[in-house]
Amino acid sequence: MAVKKSLKKKITVTDTGAALWASPDERVRDREKKRHAVILTAARYFREHGYHNTSIDDVARALNVTKPTIYHYVQNKEQLLFECFHAGLQQIMEVFPEVQDSKATARERLVAVIKRYAEAITSDFGWCMVQAENQDLSPTMSKKVRALKSEIDHGIRHIIMEGALDGSIRKCDAKIMAFALAGAMNWIAYWYRSGDSLTPTEIANRFIELFLLGLQPR
Amino acid sequence: MAVKKSLKKKITVTDTGAALWASPDERVRDREKKRHAVILTAARYFREHGYHNTSIDDVARALNVTKPTIYHYVQNKEQLLFECFHAGLQQIMEVFPEVQDSKATARERLVAVIKRYAEAITSDFGWCMVQAENQDLSPTMSKKVRALKSEIDHGIRHIIMEGALDGSIRKCDAKIMAFALAGAMNWIAYWYRSGDSLTPTEIANRFIELFLLGLQPR
Repeated sequence: MAVKKSLKKKITVTDTGAALWASPDERVRDREKKRHAVILTAARYFREHGYHNTSIDDVARALNVTKPTIYHYVQNKEQLLFECFHAGLQQIMEVFPEVQDSKATARERLVAVIKRYAEAITSDFGWCMVQAENQDLSPTMSKKVRALKSEIDHGIRHIIMEGALDGSIRKCDAKIMAFALAGAMNWIAYWYRSGDSLTPTEIANRFIELFLLGLQPR
Repeated sequence: MAVKKSLKKKITVTDTGAALWASPDERVRDREKKRHAVILTAARYFREHGYHNTSIDDVARALNVTKPTIYHYVQNKEQLLFECFHAGLQQIMEVFPEVQDSKATARERLVAVIKRYAEAITSDFGWCMVQAENQDLSPTMSKKVRALKSEIDHGIRHIIMEGALDGSIRKCDAKIMAFALAGAMNWIAYWYRSGDSLTPTEIANRFIELFLLGLQPR
């Protein structure tokens, strides 16, 4: 909706010559794009070289900008890691409201979450998603990281409990099942390399098969 | 067997007065006990304070010995971490030959591995088992850590493939299933705290239920 509106505006301003100045909408989008580039570049550096072996300078150099430019988007390296972590988790968090209002069963909603989880964890942000809390973060940052993880954990737990009510998921210990699911999914970040023979969708499908049907022949 | 033998020997030497000197058997056992105490203490420190925030001095102080005493058992802190990692993995590795010769089905053998895995990962060595490779280890040490992990991974994979042959496990992508299982199990180290409301055996049983039967009602 926002994109359509700004495209329309662009056509108008081009005719008047005002196109030489970016519109407020364009400036917001431009800042968002640049911010994303900073975070994405940092995420790739962290994954490749580790958090402690990556500096703000490395990220600035990779983007061909100055260090203060990076500080325009984040306060420090710790916040940069947090933003990478958050960008990964955000993808999963978005799926919960998406499926919540649908008429799908809890099991179908769980499948949607697993698919999105596989996409996020195999993305450039996967490493930061699982490694952020291992990097000696400040207590404040650790708390923020744990709170976000807990939100996803409770989202999965909630779906499993709803499944016991709508009959689409076996009655079980939802807490432990959610931990097992998240653990198996998080671990993907440790073994998956982009260019693997399996796509994220194929990995998700195999995980769904395991979690829903188990390994015992029916 | 070794214990029985040495007990018998002890009774004999007590009568002769030679008990003032430890027997060769006793000296070996004594060294093993001390070595275990060093590794266990280090494992608890690493888990509590992190690898980089723990020094050989901390471990020595906790055991009321000098730093050189610790160097009697390990060459450096990195090797100390490796020994903790190895002590955890060793518990799981021992289960493979134990179940290999049994007449149990592959599924029953998988269950035995999961139970042992749950015991190991909830032990004092659990943290080191999953965190060792995140600690900027030297390339040589990283290689040793990866090789041992790979051994367990292949052990699980092998059982899953055997299950497809003896009909006790559904035909599946053994590699991905082994990764999922190990991931879910390893993740226990992140959320389990000793004194949790569930015992390691109860956790193992819930994991077995998930992995064998899945979440979908039959």
